[in-house]
Amino acid sequence: MEIIKGGITSAKGFNASSTGAGIKYGNRDDMAMVYSDVPCVAYGVFTSNVVKAAPVIWDRDIVEKSPYVQAIVVNSGIANACTGEIGLAVCRETAEKTASMLDIPSNAVLVCSTGIIGKQLPIDKIKKGIENLSKDLDSTYEKGHKAACAIMTTDTVSKEYAVQFNIGCKTVTIGAMCKGSGMIHPNMCTMLAFITTDICISKDLLKKAIKNDVLDSFNMISIDGDTSTNDSLLVLANGMAENEMITEENDDYSAFCAALQEVTKHLSKMIASDGEGSTTLMEVTIKNADTKEHARIMARSVVSSSLVKSAIYGNDANWGRIPCALGYSGIEFNQEIYDIYYISSNGNIQVVKNGLDSGYDESIATKILSSDEVIILVDLKMGHETATAWGCDLTYDYVKINADYRS
Amino acid sequence: MEIIKGGITSAKGFNASSTGAGIKYGNRDDMAMVYSDVPCVAYGVFTSNVVKAAPVIWDRDIVEKSPYVQAIVVNSGIANACTGEIGLAVCRETAEKTASMLDIPSNAVLVCSTGIIGKQLPIDKIKKGIENLSKDLDSTYEKGHKAACAIMTTDTVSKEYAVQFNIGCKTVTIGAMCKGSGMIHPNMCTMLAFITTDICISKDLLKKAIKNDVLDSFNMISIDGDTSTNDSLLVLANGMAENEMITEENDDYSAFCAALQEVTKHLSKMIASDGEGSTTLMEVTIKNADTKEHARIMARSVVSSSLVKSAIYGNDANWGRIPCALGYSGIEFNQEIYDIYYISSNGNIQVVKNGLDSGYDESIATKILSSDEVIILVDLKMGHETATAWGCDLTYDYVKINADYRS
Repeated sequence: MEIIKGGITSAKGFNASSTGAGIKYGNRDDMAMVYSDVPCVAYGVFTSNVVKAAPVIWDRDIVEKSPYVQAIVVNSGIANACTGEIGLAVCRETAEKTASMLDIPSNAVLVCSTGIIGKQLPIDKIKKGIENLSKDLDSTYEKGHKAACAIMTTDTVSKEYAVQFNIGCKTVTIGAMCKGSGMIHPNMCTMLAFITTDICISKDLLKKAIKNDVLDSFNMISIDGDTSTNDSLLVLANGMAENEMITEENDDYSAFCAALQEVTKHLSKMIASDGEGSTTLMEVTIKNADTKEHARIMARSVVSSSLVKSAIYGNDANWGRIPCALGYSGIEFNQEIYDIYYISSNGNIQVVKNGLDSGYDESIATKILSSDEVIILVDLKMGHETATAWGCDLTYDYVKINADYRS
Repeated sequence: MEIIKGGITSAKGFNASSTGAGIKYGNRDDMAMVYSDVPCVAYGVFTSNVVKAAPVIWDRDIVEKSPYVQAIVVNSGIANACTGEIGLAVCRETAEKTASMLDIPSNAVLVCSTGIIGKQLPIDKIKKGIENLSKDLDSTYEKGHKAACAIMTTDTVSKEYAVQFNIGCKTVTIGAMCKGSGMIHPNMCTMLAFITTDICISKDLLKKAIKNDVLDSFNMISIDGDTSTNDSLLVLANGMAENEMITEENDDYSAFCAALQEVTKHLSKMIASDGEGSTTLMEVTIKNADTKEHARIMARSVVSSSLVKSAIYGNDANWGRIPCALGYSGIEFNQEIYDIYYISSNGNIQVVKNGLDSGYDESIATKILSSDEVIILVDLKMGHETATAWGCDLTYDYVKINADYRS
């Protein structure tokens, strides 16, 4: 597998475009389109929030029921959530307008929105935007990059990634773009992720691959259930790599899953590290848990603890906040045998040994924590399961009281 | 019922003292003692965190098994959590030293700690502190106030409260002190609350009153399960008001429960509003829910939403964050009939009507939100149950990106 410079247009047959429709922002692109030259199998996973935005309701239906998908239309600025029947009508009209412009069926069009909840989308501006987007589609990297910029809201950087791997003598490409920024809970602002690939795969196996994948990628930057009204991951596969179609869980399927996980974990980290002013990407690994699910829950609990995040910002080894966060996850663990380590490019140090302070050197710990990427490793010594979650430190003045609490 | 100026020493027969033991802070009192002239019935509720500090383990045992309680010893600076066998030994020695100084049994002594997790308490300093505390006990308001100051950690103000009410011709007093500050999750820093009363009540009914009480007071400033290693509420009743002993759920019991709820709700609000730099006490009421428990869960979900808190700080009526937080609480509700109102001393306004934007006047909403106490009222129109939760706004620079997101 090879990482390549690229994004949503990297895989064969995928095109993108962007335009400024003036939905909320006056001086930037706020709509994007993705289009495949040929029909795609597609699948998606969506927010677990009880309140689902209109496009989530539309897309969930399409990925479950439509024979194929060929285009995605996205807008930023307004989320089209809490908008009732009008909001659903806007999705339908958006898909219909796109379908008529691209000469495809309207149930081959996925729709996504991100931005303010509760406001209605201006459908005339959306339709005008779709006209522009449809005429401007192209497969260049530049087009994909501009699309990645058009979907940003509070993001401080655009987020793209692409990898290639081989199946037999065929090269398969996976390209992606996403938006979402790692404020207090990364998930609290809408996360939208789009993945395009030219792999030839059956819908059943694409679905299975995605459902397994998110457990260790996007779900590890969010608190269980604590998701926005619009969070969506959409994956389109158009088969243009011309590999033998994957219809069973063979080596080709494994290769695809590994490449997909590389992409989704990378996107997850990009989201986690994109908090305004954030200085550190935090990675929390729970090792030797009794079950995988327990490891995931505990990793998420630590990575989203405001007090742990503040301590990391303050380069403060104050490890007591870690067992506290492990403890309020609700998962039982043996408090007399667990170890905790801090790891970074500056070295590594054990701060807890068998549940007690290891007597570590504070100045060494501070040096290790003053890196821009810090790993907190908890070894529970209870079983053999491991999970990793990502987040960012809390860096603003408001955390001073916590970062300084111990000093 | 009458609110009086007072605190932990207001009820008959209760004394307090404080001293600087030099546990962590050099220049302030960091230990406090509460002592009743006569034995008390006592009960407590404690953190649901899997990781429980040594004093929580000690106290839980005492309130369940001891025939009576007569003293509480508290230190700030070090939490005595994640301290293993040594930590438990420190609790036992603390109780024994106090017992020998006050000539009471060691199982009549409750022990509390708050501060850094993972460090061992210096037992020699603690013992020296207990000697000073034991000699300095007095029932004046001033002593109680100094005790309330001695238990503070990140708190910016000390927290005390007292009320009186009558049972027959007898005056009953309830006094209290607590610590804890309303950062991001009020509960994430240790909350300790101490309530003393001269009421004459059976242990069974005291226990019942407290267990019911916290459901609508302290539990409504915290996220379910998301509590620190040391959170504790301890209540002592010494019977010196000489009312006829309450042994059944009669009118006297109801009067006590009402007074207790007044005290605990007031303490909860004091904790919720004490975040450094916080400008607004946020109160979230869920009305007409189908069950009481659903109302509580939804109220807590909204009050602890960082995005709602930031919007309140920015005086921004951005109501979409409220149904988003209702939705990720996981409780189903009818999205086509709910209403949302903002209420303050500056007026009130309906921002959502039957699940949709009401077309409210933004400038009026902004004026209402620019008060130092704001109520968010959600009417679900599904049943007849109501619950209220409290929190504070997020006011620091780091929230700018959220507060400004919509403008």
